Amino acid sequence: MGGARSWWGWGDEAGALSGGEADALVGRVAAFFPGQDFADHAPPSPEDLPVAPSRVRVPGSLAHLVSAGVVDRLSHSRGKAFRDVVRNLHGDTAHVVDLVARPGSEREVVDVLDWCGREGIAVVPYGGGSSVVGGVEPRFEGPAVSLDLGRLDRVLEVDEVSRAARIQAGVYGPHLEDRLRPYGLTLRHFPQSFEFSTLGGWLATRAGGHFATLYTHIDDLTESMRVVTPVGVSESRRLPGSGAGPSPDRLFLGSEGTLGVITEAWLRLRERPRWKAGASVAFPDFDGAVAATRAIAQAGLHPANCRLLDSTEALLNAGTPVGGGVLVLGFESAHHPVGGLLDQALGHVREYGGTPLGDAAHSDAAPDGAAAAWRSSFLRMPYQRDVLARRGMIVETFETACTWDRFPALHHAVVSAAREALEWACGGGGVVTCRFTHVYPDGPAPYYGVYAPGRWGSTVAQWDEVKAAVSEALIGAGGGITHHHAVGRDHRPWYDRQRPDPFAAALRGAKAALDPAGILNPGVLVG
Amino acid sequence: MGGARSWWGWGDEAGALSGGEADALVGRVAAFFPGQDFADHAPPSPEDLPVAPSRVRVPGSLAHLVSAGVVDRLSHSRGKAFRDVVRNLHGDTAHVVDLVARPGSEREVVDVLDWCGREGIAVVPYGGGSSVVGGVEPRFEGPAVSLDLGRLDRVLEVDEVSRAARIQAGVYGPHLEDRLRPYGLTLRHFPQSFEFSTLGGWLATRAGGHFATLYTHIDDLTESMRVVTPVGVSESRRLPGSGAGPSPDRLFLGSEGTLGVITEAWLRLRERPRWKAGASVAFPDFDGAVAATRAIAQAGLHPANCRLLDSTEALLNAGTPVGGGVLVLGFESAHHPVGGLLDQALGHVREYGGTPLGDAAHSDAAPDGAAAAWRSSFLRMPYQRDVLARRGMIVETFETACTWDRFPALHHAVVSAAREALEWACGGGGVVTCRFTHVYPDGPAPYYGVYAPGRWGSTVAQWDEVKAAVSEALIGAGGGITHHHAVGRDHRPWYDRQRPDPFAAALRGAKAALDPAGILNPGVLVG
Repeated sequence: MGGARSWWGWGDEAGALSGGEADALVGRVAAFFPGQDFADHAPPSPEDLPVAPSRVRVPGSLAHLVSAGVVDRLSHSRGKAFRDVVRNLHGDTAHVVDLVARPGSEREVVDVLDWCGREGIAVVPYGGGSSVVGGVEPRFEGPAVSLDLGRLDRVLEVDEVSRAARIQAGVYGPHLEDRLRPYGLTLRHFPQSFEFSTLGGWLATRAGGHFATLYTHIDDLTESMRVVTPVGVSESRRLPGSGAGPSPDRLFLGSEGTLGVITEAWLRLRERPRWKAGASVAFPDFDGAVAATRAIAQAGLHPANCRLLDSTEALLNAGTPVGGGVLVLGFESAHHPVGGLLDQALGHVREYGGTPLGDAAHSDAAPDGAAAAWRSSFLRMPYQRDVLARRGMIVETFETACTWDRFPALHHAVVSAAREALEWACGGGGVVTCRFTHVYPDGPAPYYGVYAPGRWGSTVAQWDEVKAAVSEALIGAGGGITHHHAVGRDHRPWYDRQRPDPFAAALRGAKAALDPAGILNPGVLVG
Repeated sequence: MGGARSWWGWGDEAGALSGGEADALVGRVAAFFPGQDFADHAPPSPEDLPVAPSRVRVPGSLAHLVSAGVVDRLSHSRGKAFRDVVRNLHGDTAHVVDLVARPGSEREVVDVLDWCGREGIAVVPYGGGSSVVGGVEPRFEGPAVSLDLGRLDRVLEVDEVSRAARIQAGVYGPHLEDRLRPYGLTLRHFPQSFEFSTLGGWLATRAGGHFATLYTHIDDLTESMRVVTPVGVSESRRLPGSGAGPSPDRLFLGSEGTLGVITEAWLRLRERPRWKAGASVAFPDFDGAVAATRAIAQAGLHPANCRLLDSTEALLNAGTPVGGGVLVLGFESAHHPVGGLLDQALGHVREYGGTPLGDAAHSDAAPDGAAAAWRSSFLRMPYQRDVLARRGMIVETFETACTWDRFPALHHAVVSAAREALEWACGGGGVVTCRFTHVYPDGPAPYYGVYAPGRWGSTVAQWDEVKAAVSEALIGAGGGITHHHAVGRDHRPWYDRQRPDPFAAALRGAKAALDPAGILNPGVLVG
């Protein structure tokens, strides 16, 4: 991470692929899609784009917090999905926030909400802006302020006895880990957006993290939260467990900026791992690989990594040609050797025809070479996506979770729907990949990738066709519309069908009580 | 379990202590409290009590579902707390439900809610009636129907692949386990009320279960729920994990009958354990015992049992005289031997001065002898409470959770408050015990027992003084008002202070949307 943030694409400019790297990537992809036009389309100069003037006048008392600069406003008005990046490349300025506000204290958050409530200005809370579901885009009429929490970036308190820390919501992942390192503690929550997303964003979207099993959603790492709502500040008690009524935190977790602005939270930490063990296992068929993964998920072994790659995913992202899939297993502990756990897991995989690739690695160094390489590659993927998006490729992912009994039918329905939609929208071609990012005793969280040759100028519309088709398939086959990408505006039609109607009524009732003027992130979840 | 349910006390009549057992218990207790009057006070004949006639006329279409029998109405109008049992012994009939309704289908639940909504009759959902917080008592003016879900007691579907089952809410614990046994599966949720509480009650109160660590609240075992609300039926999707907005289930979990009537749920199951290993460890001082327990809770070993008893608790309930406390450790697995985990845990306890008592037991039989004996004793405790309550003793428990850093001050504050209140209310005497029922990486769930000589006729008022004092201490010292006993009506004043005000407003908004007539369990949580 370094240098200026890209206004149109992922991450920062220093992290982007070099010209040579980009050419090499395009060369590899072009081999799959002969005949495709891979001409590069550079982003426009943002200062030259026809951005409507700000409709909002800020009171003098808040003037020092706000920016009306065009690039600031543009970069706060889109997330980082494929469709966001491509619309930026086309210079789309349809919906742009009128101002960006950067409060430096909770008091200033309250002041901005008060002002916007009085004036009927919508407020879009903004963490790292890495939403891939339209969560930060002011896709509505009427004035909007983007509330960027980035100045609230401190670790306020560390409780080494209970292993927890009170942390401000605007802190980015690497900064957070840097500040915990002197204590020998870590949150160990590493979404793919880790470098460019914030604690507040993880909490507001129920982010999924590093661990493949056990507590991995940020929900489970949350001890208490502090949330500024238009009717007052809500602070829950630090409690390791509670049975006192419905959980206050669980209402705000996943509220995506519609019920309040999360300003800080107590998070559960752990010691940094000292022991690690890992292996990759090849399978001759995908069904056997799925069955082995299920056996491990149900055996109480709790691997830190248990990532099943289908054969296409294994070839594209790990360079491993296999018939049925590759299961990447990893164990870690701060307290005891984990080689025995890996051996037990390998016992399960052999029952389902799995063969370990090379020697299993038992390591007490952190991070070990293979994991570090994978992590680096994982964090680079969105930059590669940007290169290909500029060349007219459709490159996007979507994800879900379902119970094990439903996975075979869901997988078939989703892959079929994706291929049909690609045929219809793109005239054929394209690759659909699948991996499991997380596994639970009762089901996996499948994560799909789509790589297809598009027509420059139409790739957003083409992707939207594919996305609608796979979303219908997911909801029809008993999956959820999202496991860890959140709902935002893009998932709303399917979320509304997934969500029980009485719960929707309850959520609207809660929203009316907390946000009576309806200013908080309109169009997301409710309203 | 067998025979008729007691209308005034715990459990069933066959489970109650025999005359000889009761005399022996009273003899042991009398040795601690010389001079106390231990005269026995038998319960009145319920048919002779002055119960007000039912104020409710049921429509003919629902007549076959309801009972207006006095004993039925009485037994549905109190939970099973000490103060409930003693009030029953005194023949208190202040608040009694007007009718008991026993729907045999979800349709009939809807019909009862519709009727009560039209007529403005309060509905108190009733599972096993084992509430110890006034959760089922109609402590309000106006007519009330107790909605007993006991006829909805079937396991409707078992998914052996995903290891989950769809189960009706009215099933009692033993019945539920009986029906899962043929599949080799178990919910393994064993609250102390296991024999006399239902799945629906566990869900409505966020019950804490068997496991000392990891997923133990029923919340974490819940895959989806079906809830009848006055505005419609809410059914969430079966999902192993989700990041789609705030969790619908987490709003109904802990709603204590105020937002809807839970009729069924999909629960996560596990295979029955094959391997077990356990040990009891004595400590010379309580602080060292707490530190060792914390070390184990933070070491990622995930013991099934990790119950720290202070020296008084160890003496009274385990017959073990020790200076500082006894830590009861147990590991279990359906998949792999667990002796190595126990050995690792014992390594931690030795660092803090712990000494294993006798040989650690490694067993592959389930249940092993010691665990079965403890379980039997655990389930018998409420029957013993009844015997002592009849003899004028104050015998009650309360519980909480807090972070590790706060435990020493909280423990001191609570024990001091209890002793002072006993001095003030009872003129001295009495014993306060402490154990941890569950431990988390960030804190324990301490569970306190109070045994004190009372004045017959005043023991409820005496206990209420003690309860108020310890509740103030808990809230003042940063604990929660309940870890797994729920809020009900008894905890309401302290719950209102624990709960963030904006969350209370949100809950009232949700309640108004789901229960516009305000008929559901008035006085609990909201309203």
